[in-house]
Amino acid sequence: MKISRAGITFPLGFKANGINCGIKKKKLDLGLIYSEAPARVSAFFTSNKIQAAPIKVCKEHLKKNNFAQAIIVNSGNANCFTDDIGIKYASWMAQLTAKNLGIKKEEVLVASTGVIGNPLPIEKIKNAIPNLVKGLAKDKSYKASCAIMTTDTFAKDIAVEFTCGARKVKIGAMAKGVGMIYPKLKQATMLCFVTTDANISVKALNLALTNSVDKTFNCISVDGCTSTNDMIAILANGLSRNKLINVGDKGFKQFAQALDFVCFDLAKKIILDAEGATKFIKINVKGAKTKSQARQAAFSIANSVLFKTACFGQNPNWGRIVAAVGAAGVDVSEDDIELKFSSFKQKYIEVTVNLNIGQYESSVYTCDLSYEYVKINAEYN
Amino acid sequence: MKISRAGITFPLGFKANGINCGIKKKKLDLGLIYSEAPARVSAFFTSNKIQAAPIKVCKEHLKKNNFAQAIIVNSGNANCFTDDIGIKYASWMAQLTAKNLGIKKEEVLVASTGVIGNPLPIEKIKNAIPNLVKGLAKDKSYKASCAIMTTDTFAKDIAVEFTCGARKVKIGAMAKGVGMIYPKLKQATMLCFVTTDANISVKALNLALTNSVDKTFNCISVDGCTSTNDMIAILANGLSRNKLINVGDKGFKQFAQALDFVCFDLAKKIILDAEGATKFIKINVKGAKTKSQARQAAFSIANSVLFKTACFGQNPNWGRIVAAVGAAGVDVSEDDIELKFSSFKQKYIEVTVNLNIGQYESSVYTCDLSYEYVKINAEYN
Repeated sequence: MKISRAGITFPLGFKANGINCGIKKKKLDLGLIYSEAPARVSAFFTSNKIQAAPIKVCKEHLKKNNFAQAIIVNSGNANCFTDDIGIKYASWMAQLTAKNLGIKKEEVLVASTGVIGNPLPIEKIKNAIPNLVKGLAKDKSYKASCAIMTTDTFAKDIAVEFTCGARKVKIGAMAKGVGMIYPKLKQATMLCFVTTDANISVKALNLALTNSVDKTFNCISVDGCTSTNDMIAILANGLSRNKLINVGDKGFKQFAQALDFVCFDLAKKIILDAEGATKFIKINVKGAKTKSQARQAAFSIANSVLFKTACFGQNPNWGRIVAAVGAAGVDVSEDDIELKFSSFKQKYIEVTVNLNIGQYESSVYTCDLSYEYVKINAEYN
Repeated sequence: MKISRAGITFPLGFKANGINCGIKKKKLDLGLIYSEAPARVSAFFTSNKIQAAPIKVCKEHLKKNNFAQAIIVNSGNANCFTDDIGIKYASWMAQLTAKNLGIKKEEVLVASTGVIGNPLPIEKIKNAIPNLVKGLAKDKSYKASCAIMTTDTFAKDIAVEFTCGARKVKIGAMAKGVGMIYPKLKQATMLCFVTTDANISVKALNLALTNSVDKTFNCISVDGCTSTNDMIAILANGLSRNKLINVGDKGFKQFAQALDFVCFDLAKKIILDAEGATKFIKINVKGAKTKSQARQAAFSIANSVLFKTACFGQNPNWGRIVAAVGAAGVDVSEDDIELKFSSFKQKYIEVTVNLNIGQYESSVYTCDLSYEYVKINAEYN
């Protein structure tokens, strides 16, 4: 498997663009990903009971077909808790993009990220869409990636190439998100878009994405807060003309491995860029009775603000780890627990807790809680 | 009902003391509460699966009898996750106190608060107990109250007097705790000790305490972290010689009301003194299908670090309230939710969310998340 920094336009047939449409003062705030050929889609959305308007629109579109050719995304406004007008606006975004691309509205996915509860400045977006579409290009994946950033400090891209039978298959991806990050649920994550030229069945695409998300994005938390706008979508346009990948194939295994790599890379980048973070923390819980129990205990540590502030203070106050395990709702005993941790002085901290009550383990990734996190979120509007 | 600032020695027959035994450099770190007559006891402990040694010792003592005459408490060390030796030390604390008081070991309750995982400096405590007992006095409730403080900035006391039949009955209480405060469970709280000279049955005492705790301490959270050392105990020595209070009596109602008042007062003081807090926040959730659902949604807001930092920043980013409600695991709908909130510029913030799906409501109390909270917990050893 070869790794490339080319991002979402790396696979055959994909173009992208990112522009400023005026939601933000100067920064890029409107992005577009486009596949020249219809692409099979798999997508998961937040399990927050409050769901943003674009999430609702995407779900409607995916009820009607399993194909998509474009994803339009704005930053600076979440278009969430915005009543029926929010849904209308999200739908207009899709419609106008479709019109300019000469495709069906249902083949366009929509996403938004930013402050919740403000009306989407739809006129700005509508006025910008023609230029956004005109400017689509192979070399603009970085612009698209920048256009979806909020408090992110760097664009998060990755691309890989691997051999599938006689063909080279490519996967590209981009993600954003550094706060309100706790995609704890079966089908949830922050914004992440994946492109591939693989020829792969929708069933195989769904399974590969489910597995990858569970192993990667579902194992990270910045602040224990699950967003209303979380979304991951993969578009597979088949242009690499490999033999159709089905579940159970050798090709499926290869594709799944590559997708795991891509998702894990982006999940790690989210933690590295987490709001105010000075530490990258890996928490391993071993010896649990089930995998979900291990993850539950691991997230109880990861989301403990006392643990996170101890990491920030480079203060190995490990009693807080023990207290968090005890408060996790897992039936553990003090006599069984074994604890190991690396130096809190390093940028990378690893904590391993063995519950010694079973055979399952899980690892999750988090960051510390710093003054800067408080500052960013006290001031963010 | 009359309110007094006299604290835990206000009821007839109670004395107290607080000294420095050397766990801390200068500050008081060892406290004692003593009833001249045997007192009926009701006590609840943390539901954290990791429980401190003194909690285990108290539970043993209360298995053997429902009476107690003394409570000895140290601060500066939690005596938690300290193996069997921790239990031995907690037991010695009780034993030596009992010996000096001329009572049985099982009539002494023990509590500790401080850093988890360090061996208790038992020699210092043992050496100090004789003087601690000798110094017991009616006017030293404030010293006892100070001796249990950790990062608390003020001692938390309250006392009340009310008429029960022909007699005056008194209740006194003290509490500590400003961090690792999330006594979410049925039978848990931070350290809180209540004294009364009421003549009341153990059954009535249990019921009154259960109800009060549920309405007060179980409705607060500083940081969503449940401690390993939480404990509340009430000692009722009967010296006011009122007619025995049983469940269902008129006297029970009066006693319960007074106890509610006392517990609520201390719960509010804990939030007012919460680590680094600049805001006192009340969150009301109305229109829920059950009381526990209302509380679940309210705590999801109270424990959202994004909501708490917005309060600190005086930034009414109410989308974070909505996101927290949606992530609460409660089946709510955007169309039903109504939201009201007071100015974030004030010291006191009140947020009211109406889910509009039922008739139940619940209020919880919390604080903001400030630089100072991070500082305190980054540096605390």
